[in-house]
Amino acid sequence: MSGAPARIGGVEESGTSRLETFSDGVFAIAATLLVLQFQVPKHHGPAFGHELLHNWHPYLAYATSFLTIGIIWINHHHLMVTIARVDRTFLFISTLLLLVVAFIPYPTQLVAEASSEPAAAYMYGGTLLVMAVVFNVLWIYASRDRRLLSEAMLPGQVRAVTQACAVGVPMTGLVVLLATWTPLGSVIFAFAISVFYLPGAAMMFDRS
Amino acid sequence: MSGAPARIGGVEESGTSRLETFSDGVFAIAATLLVLQFQVPKHHGPAFGHELLHNWHPYLAYATSFLTIGIIWINHHHLMVTIARVDRTFLFISTLLLLVVAFIPYPTQLVAEASSEPAAAYMYGGTLLVMAVVFNVLWIYASRDRRLLSEAMLPGQVRAVTQACAVGVPMTGLVVLLATWTPLGSVIFAFAISVFYLPGAAMMFDRS
Amino acid sequence: MSGAPARIGGVEESGTSRLETFSDGVFAIAATLLVLQFQVPKHHGPAFGHELLHNWHPYLAYATSFLTIGIIWINHHHLMVTIARVDRTFLFISTLLLLVVAFIPYPTQLVAEASSEPAAAYMYGGTLLVMAVVFNVLWIYASRDRRLLSEAMLPGQVRAVTQACAVGVPMTGLVVLLATWTPLGSVIFAFAISVFYLPGAAMMFDRS
Amino acid sequence: MSGAPARIGGVEESGTSRLETFSDGVFAIAATLLVLQFQVPKHHGPAFGHELLHNWHPYLAYATSFLTIGIIWINHHHLMVTIARVDRTFLFISTLLLLVVAFIPYPTQLVAEASSEPAAAYMYGGTLLVMAVVFNVLWIYASRDRRLLSEAMLPGQVRAVTQACAVGVPMTGLVVLLATWTPLGSVIFAFAISVFYLPGAAMMFDRS
Repeated sequence: MSGAPARIGGVEESGTSRLETFSDGVFAIAATLLVLQFQVPKHHGPAFGHELLHNWHPYLAYATSFLTIGIIWINHHHLMVTIARVDRTFLFISTLLLLVVAFIPYPTQLVAEASSEPAAAYMYGGTLLVMAVVFNVLWIYASRDRRLLSEAMLPGQVRAVTQACAVGVPMTGLVVLLATWTPLGSVIFAFAISVFYLPGAAMMFDRS
Repeated sequence: MSGAPARIGGVEESGTSRLETFSDGVFAIAATLLVLQFQVPKHHGPAFGHELLHNWHPYLAYATSFLTIGIIWINHHHLMVTIARVDRTFLFISTLLLLVVAFIPYPTQLVAEASSEPAAAYMYGGTLLVMAVVFNVLWIYASRDRRLLSEAMLPGQVRAVTQACAVGVPMTGLVVLLATWTPLGSVIFAFAISVFYLPGAAMMFDRS
Repeated sequence: MSGAPARIGGVEESGTSRLETFSDGVFAIAATLLVLQFQVPKHHGPAFGHELLHNWHPYLAYATSFLTIGIIWINHHHLMVTIARVDRTFLFISTLLLLVVAFIPYPTQLVAEASSEPAAAYMYGGTLLVMAVVFNVLWIYASRDRRLLSEAMLPGQVRAVTQACAVGVPMTGLVVLLATWTPLGSVIFAFAISVFYLPGAAMMFDRS
Repeated sequence: MSGAPARIGGVEESGTSRLETFSDGVFAIAATLLVLQFQVPKHHGPAFGHELLHNWHPYLAYATSFLTIGIIWINHHHLMVTIARVDRTFLFISTLLLLVVAFIPYPTQLVAEASSEPAAAYMYGGTLLVMAVVFNVLWIYASRDRRLLSEAMLPGQVRAVTQACAVGVPMTGLVVLLATWTPLGSVIFAFAISVFYLPGAAMMFDRS
C-alpha cells in the first residue's frame, strides 16, 4: 500500500505493494507454521498432563519466535512506508531476508526439542543474528544517500529507524555468545529481548 | 482497507491496512492448518472405513476450532472497521492475540487425539479463554474514552461491540470448568457455542 | 476488491473485500498444503526411482484436488463480483464453505495413500459433493430475489452463474456413486471433471 | 493491483487483482512450506551438532527452491503488470503454473533427503523445467499479437520480458541433463542459476 503505486497506462512504477503482499504472506505463514513443532504427548494417563505442563521449552520457543517475527514484521512495515520505490538490489536483499524469516520454524523446533544442545541454540541465535544483519543491510542500502527514501521522510525519522535497526545486531550477537555457556539461557534471553523490544518497535507507529 | 490510510508524501498514518493483511493471513493459515491433525488410518481393509466413520472426535475438534477462528476473524473485522488509527499498545496486544490464534491448531490436535484426557480439554478451553480475554483487552484499550475509535462510530454501536465481545469470556470460562467433569463434553459445549454464536457475530454486518 | 466498499467516516459498509482476502487465503493455503501428502520413498537404490515413477496415485489426487480448488476459487470470484453487499447469513454459509475447502487436503491424502479403499473414495467424493452443495446454497441465498446482487447484473448473467453452479452437484454425486464399484475410478472421474470444467469456469471471465 | 480493475456498477472487468492475490498466496506459502523438509536430528550429544553442520544438502535444497520461487514470483509480477486483462485460457494456464509451483516443496524434500538418487534429481530438475515451460506458454499466450497486453507496453519492453522468460527453459533443461551424471551436481547448478538469475530478474524493476 505504501509507495503510492503510480500507474502510467497500466504499468506500476515502484512495485512496493506486491512486495508487501508477498512479504506479509511469508511473515504470517512462518509465524503460523511455528505451531507445527508441538507434538502430542505419546503416553496417556497422568504422564499426559505432566508432559503438557512441565515440558515448557516448546512454549518458550514458540513465544520467542512468534514475537520476534512480529517485531521484524513491524520493522519491515516501518521500512516500507519510508521508501518511495524499489530497485533490483533492494528486491534481492528482500528475498534473502524472507529466506531467513521462512527458515525460523526449523531452529525453533530444534531448541524446542533439544534445548540442552549447544548446536540447537547456536542455530537459533545464529538465525536471529543473520536476520538482524540482513535487515540492516536492507535498510542501509535503502537509506544511504536517501537512495530509495520518500522525500517526505525527515532526517530525524531516518535516524530513528537506523538506530532501531542497529540495536538488533549486538542483541542477537549476545544470544549466540550466551549459547556457549547456557543453551537454554540464550533462548530465554532471546525471549526477553523480544518482549522488551516489541513495544519499542511498535512505538514508532505513534510518531509516523 | 479500513481506517482509510491517509498518506502524506508516501507515509501511511494509521497502518491499519497492513495489520489487517497480516492478521487475515494468520487467521486463514491457522484455520487451514487445522486439517493437518487428521491422520490416515494405519490399518487397511474393514478397519479403515470403521476408523474413518467412528473416530469422530477429530471432526468435532476441526469444526469447533474452524468456526471459532471464523467468529474471531469476523469480530476482529468489526473491531478494525470501528477504529481510525493504530498505536503501539494496540499493535502489541494485536500481536499477542495472533500468537494465541496461531496456537489453536495444537490444542485442537490434543483433543482430537486424546479427547478423554482432562489436560487436553483444559488446554483447549484454556486457549479459547485466553483468546477471549485478549480480544476484550484489545477492544477495551481501543474503545476506552474512544481512544482509537473512528468519529463516525455512534455510542450505540460501540456498546453493541462491547457486549458481543464480553460474552465470550464467561462462555469459554464454562468450557474450562466443564473439562473437570467431562473433557469430551467441554469440547462439544465449545462446538455448540461456536455454532450458535457465529450467526450472532455475523449479524453485526447487517447493522454496520 | 469487488462490492466497492462504500465508506462513511471510516466504516466500511459491505465487508466483501476483507471476506475475499480471507477466502483467498484459505483457498491458496488449502491448495498449497496438498503437497504435504507426498512422502519420500523409504527405500533407496532402484526401489526409490521405481516408487517415484510407478506410485502415481498421489499425483492424480494432487492434480485433481488442486484443479478442483482452483475451479471453486474461480467460481467464488465470479460469485463475489456479482454481489453488492454481505449479510450475516451469507457470511455464515461462506464460513461453512471455507470449512469444507480447508478440509480437502485430508480426503486427498486418503485416496493418495489408500486408493483401493472404498471408504477413502467415499470420503473424497463426499467432500466434493458437500462443497458443491454448500456453494449452491451460498449462490441461491445471494441471488434469490436478487437479495445481495449488484444492480448491474443482468438476468442472463445471473442465470449463467446459476447453471454453472448447479452442474457441480450431479457431477460430484456421480463421483460418490462410482466409488461403490471402483474407488480409484471415481477419483479418475473427478480428475476428468476438473480438467474439462476448469476452462468452462474460466470462460465466464470472457463475458463479465 | 495491476490491470486497473475497471468497475461498472460493481462488476470488475479484468479480474487481475484477485488472481494476483491468489497467486501471491500460493507463491508465499510454497516458499514458506519448504522449511518443513528439515528434520530434527534423532541422536543427541555430539552427533546432534555434527549432523546439523555436515548434513548440508537440505540447506542447499532449501536455498535453491526458495530463490527459484522468488525469481518466478518476480517474473510473474512483471508479467502481470504488462497485461491489461485476463481471459479464460490465461486463467487456465495460470492455474497449471500454480499447480507446479505448489508442488516444488516435494522434489525439494526428495533432493534434501536423497541427494545421491538420480530419480530425486530428475524429479527436481524436471519440476523446474516444467515450471519454466508453463511460464513461457503463459507469456507467449498473453503477448502473441499483444492479445492481453496493456497498450502502454512498448515493443522493446515486450521483447525484454520474452528474452528473460525464454532463457529459463534451456537452463533448467541443463539441470535435468546434469542429473544423469551427478544428481547432487545438478542441484548445485540449479542453485547457481538462481543466485545469478535473481538480480537479472529483479533488474527489470529498474526499467519498468
